Order: sequence, then structure tokens, then C-alpha cells
Amino acid sequence: MRMYDIIHKKRNGGELSDEEIDFLVRGCTDESIPDYQLSAFCMAVYFRGMTDRETTALTMAMAKSGDCIDLSGIDGYTVDKHSTGGVGDKTSLIVAPIVAACGGKIAKMSGRGLGHTGGTVDKLEAIPGFGTELTSDEFISQVNNIGLCIVGQSGELAPADKKLYALRDVTATVESIPLIASSIMSKKLAAGSQGIVLDVKTGSGAFMKTAGESETLAKEMVAIGKAAGRKIAAVITNMDIPLGNYIGNSLEVIEAVKTLMGEGESDLTEVCLTLATQMLCFVTDKSEEECRAMAEKAIEDGSALNKLREMITAQGGNAGVADDFSLFKQPKYQIEIRSEKEGFISHTDAEKIGIASVILGAGREKKGDPIDPSAGIILKKKTGDFVEKGQTLAVFHTDDSTKVKDAEKEFFDALTFSDTKPDNQKLIYKIIK
Amino acid sequence: MRMYDIIHKKRNGGELSDEEIDFLVRGCTDESIPDYQLSAFCMAVYFRGMTDRETTALTMAMAKSGDCIDLSGIDGYTVDKHSTGGVGDKTSLIVAPIVAACGGKIAKMSGRGLGHTGGTVDKLEAIPGFGTELTSDEFISQVNNIGLCIVGQSGELAPADKKLYALRDVTATVESIPLIASSIMSKKLAAGSQGIVLDVKTGSGAFMKTAGESETLAKEMVAIGKAAGRKIAAVITNMDIPLGNYIGNSLEVIEAVKTLMGEGESDLTEVCLTLATQMLCFVTDKSEEECRAMAEKAIEDGSALNKLREMITAQGGNAGVADDFSLFKQPKYQIEIRSEKEGFISHTDAEKIGIASVILGAGREKKGDPIDPSAGIILKKKTGDFVEKGQTLAVFHTDDSTKVKDAEKEFFDALTFSDTKPDNQKLIYKIIK
Repeated sequence: MRMYDIIHKKRNGGELSDEEIDFLVRGCTDESIPDYQLSAFCMAVYFRGMTDRETTALTMAMAKSGDCIDLSGIDGYTVDKHSTGGVGDKTSLIVAPIVAACGGKIAKMSGRGLGHTGGTVDKLEAIPGFGTELTSDEFISQVNNIGLCIVGQSGELAPADKKLYALRDVTATVESIPLIASSIMSKKLAAGSQGIVLDVKTGSGAFMKTAGESETLAKEMVAIGKAAGRKIAAVITNMDIPLGNYIGNSLEVIEAVKTLMGEGESDLTEVCLTLATQMLCFVTDKSEEECRAMAEKAIEDGSALNKLREMITAQGGNAGVADDFSLFKQPKYQIEIRSEKEGFISHTDAEKIGIASVILGAGREKKGDPIDPSAGIILKKKTGDFVEKGQTLAVFHTDDSTKVKDAEKEFFDALTFSDTKPDNQKLIYKIIK
Repeated sequence: MRMYDIIHKKRNGGELSDEEIDFLVRGCTDESIPDYQLSAFCMAVYFRGMTDRETTALTMAMAKSGDCIDLSGIDGYTVDKHSTGGVGDKTSLIVAPIVAACGGKIAKMSGRGLGHTGGTVDKLEAIPGFGTELTSDEFISQVNNIGLCIVGQSGELAPADKKLYALRDVTATVESIPLIASSIMSKKLAAGSQGIVLDVKTGSGAFMKTAGESETLAKEMVAIGKAAGRKIAAVITNMDIPLGNYIGNSLEVIEAVKTLMGEGESDLTEVCLTLATQMLCFVTDKSEEECRAMAEKAIEDGSALNKLREMITAQGGNAGVADDFSLFKQPKYQIEIRSEKEGFISHTDAEKIGIASVILGAGREKKGDPIDPSAGIILKKKTGDFVEKGQTLAVFHTDDSTKVKDAEKEFFDALTFSDTKPDNQKLIYKIIK
């Protein structure tokens, strides 16, 4: 078998056999196939696509290219949640405790933030003392003890995907549904949970800009999950507006705590309850209504917040932050950003809001950049709100006052004003199962 | 400027600026752009194409990426000829002496054979003593003395093209009209002749399998040549059947000599006279009819054959081969291949005939492989001929009798028989000026 022939076949619109895909993924992992052939292949896939069978075969082969996490030592039903990434997306910090409080087992590996979107590991590390590097035994045992553990990625999960993604990132071949679906699902399958709920973000702050693209991606991933024998659902949610009002690492933990106290913003609370409901359906086999009621109760009775406290303590963090937000590192500057215009906010480019928060220190432009856990943005006005000239639009948190001007420019660029109130946007577009 | 953005733009169907193309070619030449980005770019071009302006800019940039041959020391009009490659294509050996005999100046750099097509340098080197490595001064001075010199490529002609072509060759991105056109034309422009006549082969033994594709390629190349201020024409000729009857290195020199003696096959003679006519139109500014008459006369009066003898002598070869073919190295075996079928040859896959000759030792599968100058095939029957069972189809020449069976299989595979005489094929499809 020759990689040339595989590229040629795909270029001409042919369907690759499982053997050809295995050959490709093996060669990608052991580096016997040169990068220039892999990138040409990815570009051919960008134009020609892949059939469901090919995409599933690619996913399986990449999932098996490295370590597959063995969660069989966990007593109970393991369920995972994955978001395609957005701005202000702290749902994992809320959903995981809710589901664990209702009996689900959350053994979750999360990533760090890159570009305009944040990462759960960075957010958790904003909690003083919180550790995200556990041994495999500690990980399993914590899930067995309290039902919940969130750690950074350890071991070599889907190294073929890692290699391929790095190449796609520099060759303009990221935006391909089968390649995105197989990339996400290879890691999720290798991460080992029995049930998987995907939060497919759509809109200006998401990778997928339209609901149609998101649905295509969601269906592709659900089909792969089923083919791999997992329970799987995908919720397509709005990311045309940042989720909740807090953007930044400690700020998002604070908003998560507030939401678990029942004091969260309605958009954030609704997305979290929807995701938790789908996860609990897999855990309990009860109806959606019953699962939704369980999730709501876990917030009302404080059991979900308690689960978060337990997790923080178990992972070496100071659980006191849940009661006293001043225990988080505080920013040197809190700067009110006032409107120069009057009118309704008719549109928000959520990606630009994310970039503004990165400029303030909340994120990283490239891997390995340091971040400031206290930096970020608290939104005071969002799409649909009426704003008077001089009214506070947001509060910037930062240690570096020299960055405020650039961040402000990006922030203002993100907002479009109009004289009329815009239509309300859908929050949950669709659930694919 | 970033290569990523250039790939992204082309992927989305955008038109690159001259600056972007210069950046790309510079980065290709100095290796600052990694191969994996160049190959992804080539695949994007495969799908999106390039405008005439982009193709011209790419050609010019590649032509200027290395040495540009200075032919200004030559007294007279320099005219070059290029074939896109075929089986049994010995036209350069015939056309160049004809044109030189009529006063044109041929300062020609040729290549070696690769795959199923031969190279003029290999053919000339089949002549005992013939040298194809000359200094620049020797090259110019020979053209001034006798009007004619054919050498191997020296110096670094269009290194950006060399790099890009090597990548395209292993990433299934060769078959792109703008990339083929710019690759050929960048080398032709760098080679310095004032006039250029292209022989665009079409059919089973050619790179372009249909007349339509060939015409598109021809038009593209002619447009580039004009934009570069050269006189240029392209002749689209049949390569669905091997040209002439002799395939192999010394065999093709022999057939060239016979043709210059006026004893050539009609197809080969006609293609050569057509090409020579176009070249002489550039040299003399006379009418096509007058140029054709000049070319025919150069065969009739022996002046063209004499020019070939002069060139052989000037380049250290034994010109006696033109009168005594036994002076060529002789093959150990000459094996008659007899038909197992009866009927008309309705189609010949010329590429397979080329491969059969490579198997016998006449060509190389990869760069640097040794070749046997005496190996090859003499065709006794061609498309349109009626063949009786047991009649001789061809004579194989080789030093390695163990290869005959494989070559024979390939040869038989190339032939399709039918009960009815096939329609005559066009020999010259079109002339693009």
C-alpha cells in the first residue's frame, strides 16, 4: 500500500477502505508517512469529504493510535461531556457536579484554553491549590469516592489526531466536518466513558458559524459514537452571544458557583440543565422530564454545589472559594467600560469578546503562554439590551493596564447597535440522538 | 505575509496577488516554507485552479528563482522546442537539425527519460562518444559555429519548480493545468530562446489523455509565453499511438536518421515537418507554406542529416553511426513477438508500450537507474493494421532475456483487437498561436 495512491483516490472522490485508513493512521503515528503527504491528503478531504463509514474508520483508528483510558475500575455509569468550545463556556464546572450529585460518574479529562476559547483545566487551576495532574489510580479512586474528577490530559490520547491536527492547523485544513468529527470523537472514545454528551456550539463565538454546519457535525459525531457502541447525544447550543456574563478563569468559576447556588444567568442555567438532563438519561434510563427534575433539584438542595466543594477539596484546592470569592487572586485593575453609543445591542461577535479577554491576560495566543487567572471581562449588557450613552457595558479585570486600550477596541468592535430591539435568539437549537 | 493565509485564500477560491505568489516561490526556493504547506497549497490549486494572471505570475517567479540562460552571445534567432512527452517521441533529433539547416539557432537543453517516456539526452548518449555536458561558452560557440547544440540541463534552472514538482509527484497534485503549464514554461523561459514551439501530446501515451485537456494546457502555455514577450506556438499532436515505429534510445536515433534520409514513417515525418514549420515561421517571418517547403527541402537535399552529423561530431560522437547503424551497441537478444489473436488493432495503450520498453531496459523507473542504450521495441504493426495469428507484432531488443515475459505481458495488454478496421486517428489536432 502506498500513501500516494490513497491521496490520489481521495482526490478523485473515491471511498477509502478500512485497510487504507488504518495504513494512513499507522503511518501518521509512527511518522513513516511524511507530513507533506498527510497535509495534501487533508486538503483533498477538505474538498471531497468522507463517507460516514470512512469517518468512523478514521476515528476508530486514531482512537486506537495511543492510550485508551480504562475506566472499568469505576463502579457505576461513566458519562462524559464535551463542548466544541466557546466564549464564557463554563458548563463543565456546573454540569459535572450536577450529574455526579445525581449518581453519574464523571471521570473527565479536559484541555487548556487556546485562542479565543478557554479551557476547563485553566479555570480549575484558578482555584488556589487545585491540582489537575493525578495518577491513573488516584483518578479512578476519586471518581469511585465522590463520583467526580476532572484532570488534564495525561498519557498519549490519540497521538495520530494530535499529529494530524497540528498539521491541519497550519495548512488551512481544519474546517472539514469529517476531520473535525473524527478529531473530537477519537479523543472522546479513547477517554473511555460509556456515555457521551456533546455540546456543539454555533454562532459568532464558535468554530461552526451556522446552525446547519453544527447539525451536520453533530450528526456525524453521534453516528460515530453509536458505531463505537457508546450512548451519545449532541445538543446544538447558541454561541452567537457569550454564555453567561463572566469571561476569564476565576471569573468563570465564580459564575459556576453562583449558578450552582441557583443564582445563575438564565441562558447559562438553561444550557447546563439541558446538558445534565441528557447525561442523566444515559446514567438512569429515566425519562427526560424525570432527569430534568433531578438536575433542577440538585441545584435547589445544594447537593450539586456540595459536589463541586468535594471535588475541589479532593484535588487539593481551597473549597472556601465557593463561599468567599475574595480567596481567588484579585486583579490589579477593574475598569468600567462605558458605551459611546446609545441603542439596542443588535449583535455581538462573541469571538471578538473572547479575543478581548485574551488580550487582558485570560487566555493564550499560543501553546505554553502564561495566563492570569484573575483577568477577564464581566458583561453588564448583552445582545438585546438597551444601552444609554455612558452606561457601563462591561468591567475589565486585568493586571496589565497597558492592554486595556487594545482590549477595549476589540470589545467595541464586537458590538453592533441598532434602534430597534433585535429578535430573541434561540438558545438550544436542537438535540441530536 | 503568511503561507497559511495564502493556502486559506486559494482553498476558498480566491485569486492570489503577484506579491503572494512571489512570497510563495521565494519561500519554496529558500526552503523557508515547509513542504507540508506547499503540498496542501498544490492540492488546493488542483481543486480551485488559477487565473491566467496567477499562472503567469507563478511561471515568471519560478523562472527567476534560479539561473536564466543568457543566449545573447548567439548570432541569429534562437528557437526552442518542447514536447510534453510521449512514447517513441524522437522529434527533437529530427526537428532540430532541420531548423538549424534552414538557418535557425537551436541552443537546446534536454532532459533524461523517466517512467514510460524517454529523454533526448539519453537518446543522444546512445551515440558512441556523444557528450551532453558542455560549458556555457562551448554551448554558445557551437551554436554560433554550426547552428545547433543539444545538452543536458546545467546550472540551476527554475529550482522552485524542481522543488515543487518533486512534491507534486508524491502528493497526487501533478495533474493540474496551471501547475503543469507553469512548470514547463518556467524552465522554457529560463532556457532563454526567443521563440518556443510546444508539442503538446495527447492520448493514451501522453500525460494529457484528451484533446480538450491538451488544448487547455496549450492555450495556457501560449498565453504565458506571450506575456513573457516570447514568440510561441503549440502544436497538439496524437500520442494515442507511439510515434514512428522505433522505441528505445539507439533505436530512436536510427529512426531519426532514417527520417532525415526521407525514409521515415509518415506519422513521424508529418509531426516533425509541422513542428519545424512553426519554428521556421519564427526564425524567418516567412509564410507557413514557404517554411514547410524549406523544411521538406532540408530533408530532400540531405542538409538536415548533415546538420545532425555536424552536431554529433562537434559533441565528440561518432557521426559514422548515421551511415552504419551497426556502430551502435547491439542488444544480446532480438526477439520476435507474434500475435496470439487475429483482427484489426483497434486501440493501442501507448503508455503500456512505453512501460514494456522500460522493462526491456530502455528507460528508468526512478531517477539514476542505469539504462541500456540498445534496448527497446520495433513495432511491426500499429493501430489500424490487420494482424493474422502468428504474425510478428514487434521485435524486442534487450540484453536481459529474463525480462521478456513481463515486457510481453505489458505489450499484449496494450493492444485491443476488433473485427472491423478502426477509424483513422487525427495526427495533428490543432495549432495554437
